Amino acid sequence: MDYTSLSKEEIERLLSEQNRVLKEIGKKKIALDISRGKPAPMQLDGVMPLLDILGSDTVFPKPDYRNYGILEGIPELRALFAQILGVDKNEVIIGGNSSLNMMYDTIARAMQFGICGGQPWFGRKIKFLTPVPGYDRHFGICEHFGIEMINIPMTPTGPNMDLVEQLVSGDDDIKGIWCVPKYQNPTGITFSEDTVRRLATMKTAEDFRIFWDNAYVVHDLYEDGDTLANIMSIAKEAGTQDRIYQFTSTSKVTFPGAGVACLAASEKNIKDILSHMKYQTIGANKINQYAHLLYLKSAEHVKELMAAHAAIIRPKFDKFMEVMDEAFGDDSGIASWTRPKGGYFISLDVLEGCAKEVGRLCKSVGLTITNVGDTYPYGMDDKDSNIRIAPTFTSDEDLEAALQILVCCIKVACLTKLSSK
Amino acid sequence: MDYTSLSKEEIERLLSEQNRVLKEIGKKKIALDISRGKPAPMQLDGVMPLLDILGSDTVFPKPDYRNYGILEGIPELRALFAQILGVDKNEVIIGGNSSLNMMYDTIARAMQFGICGGQPWFGRKIKFLTPVPGYDRHFGICEHFGIEMINIPMTPTGPNMDLVEQLVSGDDDIKGIWCVPKYQNPTGITFSEDTVRRLATMKTAEDFRIFWDNAYVVHDLYEDGDTLANIMSIAKEAGTQDRIYQFTSTSKVTFPGAGVACLAASEKNIKDILSHMKYQTIGANKINQYAHLLYLKSAEHVKELMAAHAAIIRPKFDKFMEVMDEAFGDDSGIASWTRPKGGYFISLDVLEGCAKEVGRLCKSVGLTITNVGDTYPYGMDDKDSNIRIAPTFTSDEDLEAALQILVCCIKVACLTKLSSK
Repeated sequence: MDYTSLSKEEIERLLSEQNRVLKEIGKKKIALDISRGKPAPMQLDGVMPLLDILGSDTVFPKPDYRNYGILEGIPELRALFAQILGVDKNEVIIGGNSSLNMMYDTIARAMQFGICGGQPWFGRKIKFLTPVPGYDRHFGICEHFGIEMINIPMTPTGPNMDLVEQLVSGDDDIKGIWCVPKYQNPTGITFSEDTVRRLATMKTAEDFRIFWDNAYVVHDLYEDGDTLANIMSIAKEAGTQDRIYQFTSTSKVTFPGAGVACLAASEKNIKDILSHMKYQTIGANKINQYAHLLYLKSAEHVKELMAAHAAIIRPKFDKFMEVMDEAFGDDSGIASWTRPKGGYFISLDVLEGCAKEVGRLCKSVGLTITNVGDTYPYGMDDKDSNIRIAPTFTSDEDLEAALQILVCCIKVACLTKLSSK
Repeated sequence: MDYTSLSKEEIERLLSEQNRVLKEIGKKKIALDISRGKPAPMQLDGVMPLLDILGSDTVFPKPDYRNYGILEGIPELRALFAQILGVDKNEVIIGGNSSLNMMYDTIARAMQFGICGGQPWFGRKIKFLTPVPGYDRHFGICEHFGIEMINIPMTPTGPNMDLVEQLVSGDDDIKGIWCVPKYQNPTGITFSEDTVRRLATMKTAEDFRIFWDNAYVVHDLYEDGDTLANIMSIAKEAGTQDRIYQFTSTSKVTFPGAGVACLAASEKNIKDILSHMKYQTIGANKINQYAHLLYLKSAEHVKELMAAHAAIIRPKFDKFMEVMDEAFGDDSGIASWTRPKGGYFISLDVLEGCAKEVGRLCKSVGLTITNVGDTYPYGMDDKDSNIRIAPTFTSDEDLEAALQILVCCIKVACLTKLSSK
């Protein structure tokens, strides 16, 4: 049913019906949350054997991983991440528990010290390209450091590359672009090989950097997961390998907040980064790194671990599709959404001008969704259309209830809008 | 024996004798290291039960410590550190594994964002007071950020406070002072109550901060350890509580590099810090925090754990005193040293102009000592007199050998100097 072509009477009738449903929901004193991309408790239960890996009888490699040192992280784990990311092991730094922290610190270093001996960014006009909808914490870092953001619309193959190329070739103040290239947050889209190639080879300022947040590199939900082209290989062929800062972590492989994060970059970049990092720390938690090494074992074994996560998450994505397909189908004119094969998010677009109202209605009946607008820099979605759906944390039962509420709120908000035309 | 009052003939005779000893040592192909303040493997063996604390059957508190969140650290551990440091639990942030990292980040935030809404330090003339001899990594942070360091001589009661007060009252560019107030690195001196009081109450610029690196707060070696006055209590009475950033960690309680670090400050400062930190990370490793909570248990139990460390370290400090007393006594005129009751270091002063030569001679026969000069900013000890001794990492047997070599090198270097007068 195409809601946008209904008669005024039909709209009023449906709206009145949905308002009744919403009122009934409101009476139930619900408290549901599909706002953040957090693993479900059941997923974490599956990771608990990690805590049995080390014990008082563990014999650690030399130089003693229990003592100070090894700034760049333990070599075996660098090698494992290198394999997963398709880079050389000397191109990897293993950090603490948070890739966000490594991204923030990378920007902070550029602000303070410049990149590879270049001018510090502090006090200068610095711009970043921000594919939208995108990840709020990327935007938050830019906003906090006073970096201007230029929005680039996401397409089904990645950011609009015509626009990206045009902008970076003509403006040396543009120093970076944020990318979540696989199962993008929130669209779930994986950049096409053409997009990756164009990003790696386009003409840019000398100290331009691609912040390649490969957060979902191993986070397939279906057997036929997406394939992301290896940007580092393409860049090396083109001689642009210094352009890429790649990040990932095990936050959604083992424990969020207690995993290990990594930064991968060219040897020139790694040398530059370590030349600053050595003043910041003597090294990250190598005992946790070693526990992860023994738990993750190999790239193949990581795939097995991720299959266990997928078995829990996949039904939730499927449930979303099922409920939304039934409620709206393909041609409702008021709601459309992505169909990711991995990652943690689904991007939902509702009738323009209705997203904030959907958020408000959901909240009014006890359903917390991602703050509407957060998928855009400064929280400003000019179309007021995009909503990020994070279905992973909630139980299957609660998710079904949450989705029914969401459907009702979308209908009420959009029908209200249509009725006022 | 006062070496400085010996006859030229006697000096020549002793020098010739010591040169023979040194030559014999050189033949032995020794490789010893007393350069860094690292716990000995035997100490770390004693900490191994920490790795048995958590397992797949552990039930974590809510909100689920295994998942994202709790930026400021888990409440129980904040409370424990608050007790150890004598502050309120709301005045504590538990970070990752490294207090150095928290100090560096604190300076980096001040450079970028200023303190509590003040002007950023970037691009301005910023000066710090640096008690000397002091900790090389404090100096390294200042040097890296281009912060000018003004040396303040250490006295037996702490930094020369007359000089400190005079400088900070007249120069608003002075924004901080680095202090290791208990068992100072490298002197082992604990600041007197009068020193602590003067630091807390002196007249300073509005955004002046004391970087109170309380690294050795529980690191007594003898039962009658030093008592450090509670700077936060004194500051609260004086209304200067915003002046203090306090740091500590369990790097030398549990595992170096895999412990937990903390920052303690006034609620106003904590609020300011968290307002920036929230862009940097979603939170530190709470699983490691929880493991530490269960292992450390209480302030009383921490004392017991530290007694076990002391039992291993104390004989090494005693051995140093024994060897040096026998070799030089109180009136050699060429070597004097501190007698710390805790911490990880001893400060050794040799005849002026001879420290670098002692380092060179030690290295020539296979003994690595802390790089001479490192106890001063920019590596510049104008008197070329100070050497930091770090006796903890080496085995008792190796330490004895290392000290005999050190004694010989001191004698050769100083006698050579005296003979050239």
